[in-house]
Amino acid sequence: MIRVLFAAPQAEWEAYRGPLACAFEAEQLDVALACDHDPAEVDYMIYAPDGPVRDFTPYTRCRAVLGLWAGVEGITGNPTLKIPLARMVDEGLTQGMVEWVCGHVLRHHLGLDAHIKGQDGTWRKGAPPLAWDRRVSILGLGVLGAACARALAGLGFDVAGWSRGPKDLGVIGTRHGEDGLEDVLRRAEILVLLLPLTEATRDLLDARRLAMLPRGAVLVNPGRGPLIDDAALLAALDEGRIGHATLDVFRTEPLPEGDPYWAHPRVTVTPHIASETRPASAARVIARNIRRAQGGQELHHLVDRESGY
Amino acid sequence: MIRVLFAAPQAEWEAYRGPLACAFEAEQLDVALACDHDPAEVDYMIYAPDGPVRDFTPYTRCRAVLGLWAGVEGITGNPTLKIPLARMVDEGLTQGMVEWVCGHVLRHHLGLDAHIKGQDGTWRKGAPPLAWDRRVSILGLGVLGAACARALAGLGFDVAGWSRGPKDLGVIGTRHGEDGLEDVLRRAEILVLLLPLTEATRDLLDARRLAMLPRGAVLVNPGRGPLIDDAALLAALDEGRIGHATLDVFRTEPLPEGDPYWAHPRVTVTPHIASETRPASAARVIARNIRRAQGGQELHHLVDRESGY
Repeated sequence: MIRVLFAAPQAEWEAYRGPLACAFEAEQLDVALACDHDPAEVDYMIYAPDGPVRDFTPYTRCRAVLGLWAGVEGITGNPTLKIPLARMVDEGLTQGMVEWVCGHVLRHHLGLDAHIKGQDGTWRKGAPPLAWDRRVSILGLGVLGAACARALAGLGFDVAGWSRGPKDLGVIGTRHGEDGLEDVLRRAEILVLLLPLTEATRDLLDARRLAMLPRGAVLVNPGRGPLIDDAALLAALDEGRIGHATLDVFRTEPLPEGDPYWAHPRVTVTPHIASETRPASAARVIARNIRRAQGGQELHHLVDRESGY
Repeated sequence: MIRVLFAAPQAEWEAYRGPLACAFEAEQLDVALACDHDPAEVDYMIYAPDGPVRDFTPYTRCRAVLGLWAGVEGITGNPTLKIPLARMVDEGLTQGMVEWVCGHVLRHHLGLDAHIKGQDGTWRKGAPPLAWDRRVSILGLGVLGAACARALAGLGFDVAGWSRGPKDLGVIGTRHGEDGLEDVLRRAEILVLLLPLTEATRDLLDARRLAMLPRGAVLVNPGRGPLIDDAALLAALDEGRIGHATLDVFRTEPLPEGDPYWAHPRVTVTPHIASETRPASAARVIARNIRRAQGGQELHHLVDRESGY
């Protein structure tokens, strides 16, 4: 009997208890899943940062923490966590991100807003350039960034990617380091942010780096809100140096009703929907990882606590 | 010396004369290109239906007519045309169509309009289904339809295609004939029209066939305006049976200012921009075909005059 604690908000319990039971059965694991196991008896913890657990000390028997979400910045700094932590890498989550990113990049590339908002009876000819003449840069080449880079290149876009350390994405050009960052910013007609949030990436898009973008560039952020210095972005939008920002993530979520992003004519707010973990596929990822741990294998998608992701 | 007549409107002459000269030189063809050759001396004609030529009889020496556009319905019924006719199949045109179709299908799939038009300060959670749970049907599997079907399948959509005769698109399910048409219409949450306009396809989307679509289906037409019975579509939109129509082509273009499509809240009009021939790549296609004809080879992209496309 394996005791698994579900340490996420109550609303998630309703969505996940069924899919998790199915997934454990499919992996032939004999699991007791609950929200209220005695801490000293828990073998594995399914964790969300907005759930009840802050202090991992009482979970003396726990072998691993299995994150329910892709982002882990709410837990990596917790000094009481001394056991392996795995992030969620759900194929549904990656697929959802690819769809949201391709949809918004095509929207900006094709200038769809003018047609969606501007049905005034005037026939205005004029086609956009083709995708191979549109330079898109992606910051962050993890699972999500690499998948988006490949999908955009598949649609024909001229894609360049940047990550902190060197990465090879085959035919897609990649850069790294501070020099590489300036290069990919200076070319970016459309810039997509898919970096993890760490101390090294917080406020990465500050006034100085926003000024490296070509005039009128579009910023698309489905990554993490604090990657951007909001005051610097609002100033660049006010002056038209940044043509538009489509933002799915924010420092405070839900974004407060009075936030200037809501009313800004050059901003589109979406409510953190670019990529949502889907219970059925996420449950399979968790069950497979518990089976691996039970068999003495290393967990998939382990978080490197030092780099923060 | 090969005499090539440019029989398209004057505005196109300015856009095409330079690219055509470059393309002829690249193919090592000694061409005299003009808008006003003596008809009896013309070897090849570059043709657009809105150009000056209606009667092909005086062009006694002309070996082939090379269409400047993909659509040929303005010429196939002309009884004075007795020489081979090639349509334009420009890779830029195909790419442009793929971008427009993927952009609008993703837009409807993701529900982007609500975010683009509805920035009211309210955070509304709720993600769309993933693309593999979204059924898209494409009518017409020629060069453009097949390219769009492959691109949408590449993005993850559950795609089915229909054409008059059987076609094989590998892993993408295809149907044909009247029974096949009903099947692909009944499943279509998003329907894309890329059929050629012939007597067999005129008014194909009439009241009876529109009624086969699931309630709330979205219609996307970058093909030809007369594929749709406009009165039947407007009635279906008024009742909400069709959720939205995004239309790039119309019976009358430019779409007149008072046309009900402009003001309809469930309609997006785009001004025939889904796919435009790009002068540089189109000129290369024409030059290559003249080189083939000069070498005694069959033209690429010959139009079958009997089927009308």
